[in-house]
Amino acid sequence: MNSKELQGQLCVVGLGPGDDALLTQQVRASIASATDAFGYFPYVERLQGLEHLQLHASDNREELERACSALNLAAQGRKVLMLSSGDPGVFAMASAVFEVLEQACPEELARWQAVDVQVQPGITAMLAAAARLGAPLGHDFCTINLSDNLKPAQIIEHRIRLAAQADFAMAFYNPCSRSRPEGFVRALRVLQQECEPGRLICFARNVSRPDESLQVVRLEQASADMADMRTLVIVGSSQTRRVGKHVYTPRSYGVAAHA
Amino acid sequence: MNSKELQGQLCVVGLGPGDDALLTQQVRASIASATDAFGYFPYVERLQGLEHLQLHASDNREELERACSALNLAAQGRKVLMLSSGDPGVFAMASAVFEVLEQACPEELARWQAVDVQVQPGITAMLAAAARLGAPLGHDFCTINLSDNLKPAQIIEHRIRLAAQADFAMAFYNPCSRSRPEGFVRALRVLQQECEPGRLICFARNVSRPDESLQVVRLEQASADMADMRTLVIVGSSQTRRVGKHVYTPRSYGVAAHA
Repeated sequence: MNSKELQGQLCVVGLGPGDDALLTQQVRASIASATDAFGYFPYVERLQGLEHLQLHASDNREELERACSALNLAAQGRKVLMLSSGDPGVFAMASAVFEVLEQACPEELARWQAVDVQVQPGITAMLAAAARLGAPLGHDFCTINLSDNLKPAQIIEHRIRLAAQADFAMAFYNPCSRSRPEGFVRALRVLQQECEPGRLICFARNVSRPDESLQVVRLEQASADMADMRTLVIVGSSQTRRVGKHVYTPRSYGVAAHA
Repeated sequence: MNSKELQGQLCVVGLGPGDDALLTQQVRASIASATDAFGYFPYVERLQGLEHLQLHASDNREELERACSALNLAAQGRKVLMLSSGDPGVFAMASAVFEVLEQACPEELARWQAVDVQVQPGITAMLAAAARLGAPLGHDFCTINLSDNLKPAQIIEHRIRLAAQADFAMAFYNPCSRSRPEGFVRALRVLQQECEPGRLICFARNVSRPDESLQVVRLEQASADMADMRTLVIVGSSQTRRVGKHVYTPRSYGVAAHA
C-alpha cells in the first residue's frame, strides 16, 4: 500500500446528464476503484448494484453535511466518491466541498489535511442540451443559475439584463422548482424588456434520458410553464437561428467575412 | 442495411482537451463505427492507427471547406466524423457545419438533405481547467472567445466590461495567437479598469496533457505573456478565492445563509 492509499481520497466526479454513455473513461475508472460513494439520492441510485461500493445517499439540501461526512471517511484512508450530475464544478458539489474545507475548524483541518481532494469533469447539462439542439452556444455565452436559494433575485435579474446587453447566448440552470416557481417568470420578464420578440428560446428537459424533450419557441411565445426543475433553458443571442431542424449561433459577429 | 446506413451520417464529436480518459463512451462508440474522420491536423492525429478509418486532415482556417467535404462524403452513405477538440459546440466545428448547411446552394441542399447530422458533446477546455484548479466556475459565469478573427475587438471589450459589471467569473478561449497577440492585452486592460487588483486570474495550459501547467495570480500581477494559444484563462468573480492549493467560487452570493 503506497502513501496515497493510506492518506485517503475524495474524488468529486461528474456523472453527466443521465445517459451512462456520456460518462468519461476517467470517471468510470474512479467509480471502479472507489470504496464509497456519497450523493443526492437519484445520483447514488445510478451506482446501485456495484457491490464493491458502499453507498451513502442524502437529500438535496444537505450538501455541506454530505461533504463533511465524505471528508471524514476519506480521512480514514478510504477512496471516496462525491457524485454530481453533469459537471461537478457547474452549480454542483465541487464548490460545496471547498466551502466545507474553507470553513473547517482546527480539529477538522488537522483531520482532513492529508486527504487528496480531486475534481473530475463531466458533461454538464448545457453542453448536452446544446448538442441535441445543434450549436446554440457556438459563440460567446453565459451560464446563470436562476435559483434564488443562495443569491438575491435582484442579482439574477441584473445579470440577465447585462447578459442581454452584451448579446450573450444564455444557459439557465434550475429555472424553477416546486418551492420556488417564480425564478423563470422573473427571467422571462427581463428578457422581454431587453430582447426582440423573435429571439429563440430552447427548453431541453431530461436531456439524454428516455423521456427527453426539446422545444424551441420565439420569446413572444414563451411562457413560464414551459420550464420545470428538470429543464435546461438556452436563450439565443440576437444571431441565433434555425437551420432545418437545428438551432445554432454562428461563429462570426458583426463582420461579413468568414475564415 | 437499414435506411439510416444508406442515408449517411455526419457526427460532430468532441474529443475533450487532450487526455483520452476524458472521452465519453458515446464518442468512443462513434469513432469505432465510423468510416471517415475529418478535422484539423492535430485532432486527426489522435485517431492515427485506427485502421477502419479513412483520415482527412486539414488546416485550421479551412473549417467551411472541411464541413463541405464531410457533408459530401456523408451524402454518399458513409459514416463520417467531424472532429473537434473539447466540445464541438463551444467555439468549434458544430457551428461551422451549420453555417455551411445554411449557406448551401440548391444543388448542395438536395445532395445533403438526407444526411443525418448529429452533435455529440465533449469535455470543453474550461471544464477540464476548472476541475484541475478546484471549482472557479461554481457560480454564474460567462465564456468568451478572445480571438478577433470573426468579431470586432470592440465587441469583445464591451462584453468583458459588462461581464465584470455583472460579476461573472469568465473563461477566455483563444487568448492570443501568433498572428493576433493583442487579444489578451486588450482583455487585461478592461479587467484592470473594472476589477479590484486582488482579483484571481488562472492560466491553464495544455490541461490534461503531459506538459499541463497551472498558474494562479492576482490581477495586479498578471501580464500578457502568461497566456499563449494553448492557454485557457479563467478570471474569478469578486467572490473567487483560494482554499489550500485550490481556487473556488462559492455557491452563494450576497447572502450569509447556507442551504
